[in-house]
Amino acid sequence: MNPSPQDTALQAAGATLHGTPAVPGIAVASTIRPAPRVPVEMRSVAVAESDRHAELAHFHAAATAVGRRLRERAARASGAATEVLAANAAMAADRGWLGAVEKAIATGTPAAVAAVAATDQFAEIFRGLGGLMAERVTDLRDVCDRVVAELAGAPEPGIPAPAQPSILLAADLAPADTAGLDPNLIVGLATSLGGPTSHTAIIARQLGIPCVVAVDGLDEVPAGIDVLVDGTTGQVVIGPDAEYVDRALTTYRALAARTAAWTGPGATADGHRIEVLANVQDGAGARAARQQTPAEGVGLFRTELCFLDRESEPAVAEQAALYREVFDAYPGQKVVIRTLDAGSDKPLGFADHAEEANPALGVRGIRLAARDSAILDRQLDAIAEAAAGRALWVMAPMISTAAEAKSFAGKVRERGLVPGVMIEVPAAALQAEQILEHVEFLSIGTNDLAQYTMAADRMSAELATLTDPWQPAVLALVARTAAAGRAAGKPVGVCGEAAADPQLACVLAGFGVSSVSVAAPAVAAVGATLASATLDSCRRAAAAVLATADPGEARAAAASVLTP
Amino acid sequence: MNPSPQDTALQAAGATLHGTPAVPGIAVASTIRPAPRVPVEMRSVAVAESDRHAELAHFHAAATAVGRRLRERAARASGAATEVLAANAAMAADRGWLGAVEKAIATGTPAAVAAVAATDQFAEIFRGLGGLMAERVTDLRDVCDRVVAELAGAPEPGIPAPAQPSILLAADLAPADTAGLDPNLIVGLATSLGGPTSHTAIIARQLGIPCVVAVDGLDEVPAGIDVLVDGTTGQVVIGPDAEYVDRALTTYRALAARTAAWTGPGATADGHRIEVLANVQDGAGARAARQQTPAEGVGLFRTELCFLDRESEPAVAEQAALYREVFDAYPGQKVVIRTLDAGSDKPLGFADHAEEANPALGVRGIRLAARDSAILDRQLDAIAEAAAGRALWVMAPMISTAAEAKSFAGKVRERGLVPGVMIEVPAAALQAEQILEHVEFLSIGTNDLAQYTMAADRMSAELATLTDPWQPAVLALVARTAAAGRAAGKPVGVCGEAAADPQLACVLAGFGVSSVSVAAPAVAAVGATLASATLDSCRRAAAAVLATADPGEARAAAASVLTP
Repeated sequence: MNPSPQDTALQAAGATLHGTPAVPGIAVASTIRPAPRVPVEMRSVAVAESDRHAELAHFHAAATAVGRRLRERAARASGAATEVLAANAAMAADRGWLGAVEKAIATGTPAAVAAVAATDQFAEIFRGLGGLMAERVTDLRDVCDRVVAELAGAPEPGIPAPAQPSILLAADLAPADTAGLDPNLIVGLATSLGGPTSHTAIIARQLGIPCVVAVDGLDEVPAGIDVLVDGTTGQVVIGPDAEYVDRALTTYRALAARTAAWTGPGATADGHRIEVLANVQDGAGARAARQQTPAEGVGLFRTELCFLDRESEPAVAEQAALYREVFDAYPGQKVVIRTLDAGSDKPLGFADHAEEANPALGVRGIRLAARDSAILDRQLDAIAEAAAGRALWVMAPMISTAAEAKSFAGKVRERGLVPGVMIEVPAAALQAEQILEHVEFLSIGTNDLAQYTMAADRMSAELATLTDPWQPAVLALVARTAAAGRAAGKPVGVCGEAAADPQLACVLAGFGVSSVSVAAPAVAAVGATLASATLDSCRRAAAAVLATADPGEARAAAASVLTP
Repeated sequence: MNPSPQDTALQAAGATLHGTPAVPGIAVASTIRPAPRVPVEMRSVAVAESDRHAELAHFHAAATAVGRRLRERAARASGAATEVLAANAAMAADRGWLGAVEKAIATGTPAAVAAVAATDQFAEIFRGLGGLMAERVTDLRDVCDRVVAELAGAPEPGIPAPAQPSILLAADLAPADTAGLDPNLIVGLATSLGGPTSHTAIIARQLGIPCVVAVDGLDEVPAGIDVLVDGTTGQVVIGPDAEYVDRALTTYRALAARTAAWTGPGATADGHRIEVLANVQDGAGARAARQQTPAEGVGLFRTELCFLDRESEPAVAEQAALYREVFDAYPGQKVVIRTLDAGSDKPLGFADHAEEANPALGVRGIRLAARDSAILDRQLDAIAEAAAGRALWVMAPMISTAAEAKSFAGKVRERGLVPGVMIEVPAAALQAEQILEHVEFLSIGTNDLAQYTMAADRMSAELATLTDPWQPAVLALVARTAAAGRAAGKPVGVCGEAAADPQLACVLAGFGVSSVSVAAPAVAAVGATLASATLDSCRRAAAAVLATADPGEARAAAASVLTP
């Protein structure tokens, strides 16, 4: 149950990884991981003409077997799980996909290679359609993986049946996997990919399994160690001790009671307004936040989904249509849209990105516009078109100098929009006064700010203690930025996942930030916790935190002030 | 002469790269680069037994031709260049090396492959011997490259003969290349590798060619563009305008006059002491600094040279002997030794380093000790042995928290040494007060501090404007650290190359740093410039710089106060 001596990366028990909260709740158990998929050598030799008929039959038998098993599992499942499994079973029998595979087998392509190639081709189309169709890519790959395993006579890839209640860790889960989950055995879920509207999150919510998605560093966490998954704050704690677990459970129960009763708008117990907003990445997410949470608007609309995995840049009209979906979900309310944050770690299919030795320190975000501003210009055109006269707030990622902020602000104002910038580079926090001369608002991205301030990769589990958002040095830069905003009379928000930690949200309020923006599932817990603390106690907690030397001291200092 | 439109990376004329000053002086000209070496496919098929005799003869003819040409060039050269070329010619006729190649050819290895393999084998031995022998590795590879080109009938790799005065850029230069240099045609030199005691630097000094070594980002600078090389400050400026060139030349002439007269010790015009120290990496460098400069001691003794390119960790006694050489060069004076700064970007041959997505944000420096402190413990034992009771100052690289500083300080004090830490991570500057509770001094590394504060890779030429040490955000952290030191009554030095810029050294003095440590060739210029400014003017320059929004404004603000 404990890490083996070789797991040096995780010897620091209590190391905390951070992700996006997806389903509230706390789980503590040993970890399991899904069985691996069977790899396919894509450069296989052609099947001899005389064997192609048999290859075709082999493929049909495999696809049929996979479809049948999925239908059987659908029949045993209930609610949304039934639908997902039935949809996957249907995909295994989809004429278009089967036809594409058959055509390739007929020209000599081995069945497994043909299945993967056809899946790649369909995935491309689905991604091009965007939104929910893009999320079906995971489903399609799952069906393909099962067929490939069946062709190879290997066990079906997926989740092992644990003998005891366990926490499932994965890169991302196929719907067929999540749909078959037994909530008595899988008591928590954490994935390194995915968003709060992914199938993993949807099914986990239906089954009431606490879930965190997009966890930085999760891929390094092995099976067989104890972790705590906190679906409210988005934390995954490695090897927590009994005291930590007790405290987390107590906190969670109190929080759950408060959360259920909270309806917004965001304010401290003594009525000091702190906007509580949602982070979204598409129209579906915005509509869900609107319907399911008391969020007062969108504090971070990430636009990467519209651009990544595309062969060519989406046209202005297509972008505008996607943006309009989010704007329309909050018609009279605040929406803050962030321009594209791409780079060599998140490459665009239609732009050149040189390989970089340290992509996180490379040409990403607004720095791409220094090379060629055409993509940014067209995105701003699309935002202006979708805004249709509304004074929407638009911000740029990875700003590090006042000159960059000035250049961006000019482009945004030209289009009748309200310019702001992300504060995620230490230099930007240190130059907040100079940057505020050019823009109307700031939004602090705590994940990247912690990465750069601590000089520690946020994707490294080994360095997770360093990138903890409670690091006093990181909070000192947040406090500095908030103070600069107050002095300039301009709003400063926090849209990093740090704000999803309810106690940290109170500390942020104490620094003087005017809004917090979090994943939809965290909105109520944050709002309810802010509503339970006075502004004065938030300020005292904030001052106490800045005097500490490490995240543990900082948490304790805040708790001693904020916990009644 | 100007960058072509495709050179987007370098369109920002005036972008400044930073390296280690090696030979003072200013040069402005178009760039050239050496001709490429001929690559060798090491997995070639064996030579048939019947052809091996001819292969052997082919090799002998090639080695003889290369040796003859080197001897001819030695005869035409003068001074140290003659020795270097003669030594290389001798290497082309070395019985050991020739014997190793012959033996391999006799077993069927193609001549070029045999030459490369024998060279690898000898390079390994030379590196193991360390010091000056390790620096001969470049010579040996140069001879091998020439022989390989001769075998292939290709032109000899090396420097083209330019039609006009040019600046030579290279990764590193072979002695044979530098020795043949005509200072009327090669008016400046910049390399991305090498140290101030490399052959490139030695020959450039003999010929009086302004030279900068270890320039971050230089590999991205193409041939055929105009650059300015400032061998006093270590700057390489891309596409400088006429005004910039005029100013640099004027500044340099005034500086050269002052520098020639300066004899130390370091102080402002009104007698406020600022120690001026040298950065060294071995005994030879320390002795050269002692003999050739008024440096008062060593502010940064880098210990990487002792560990890198080794198959096994050097024994404590061997380490102690190497350290003692440096300590003995400055017997009664200050020496600050930095413990090993390795990591996946500078891997050790005898330790495991996982591949990291962003090695600059990974497990490097003191973070390796969190995994396994044995290498650090033995290095501290060696330092204590070499110190022989002297209270030497020992500092750790890449400290980001007070806890790391505390742990390191305990180990250092146990051994009767004086503990300090490098401030190169923004978090460490922001937590300087808490860190100073555990250590006796701080030393600011401006290169890495700029890299992390700006979230911009210091090796990227495209981002060189961001990593400029005059960035006000970076200087704000330097000022903060210096203020924390003054409040605690503990010394704070700057050992990054920023201190080699004489005007910036005055600004640093204005922030309240108590010492600056620079490459030996920069010592006199820095000392002389400090001696020309009052402490009050340094303080006013420092305050003016902190109010600016970019490096250009910062330089102008300092100049307006400091330039009489």
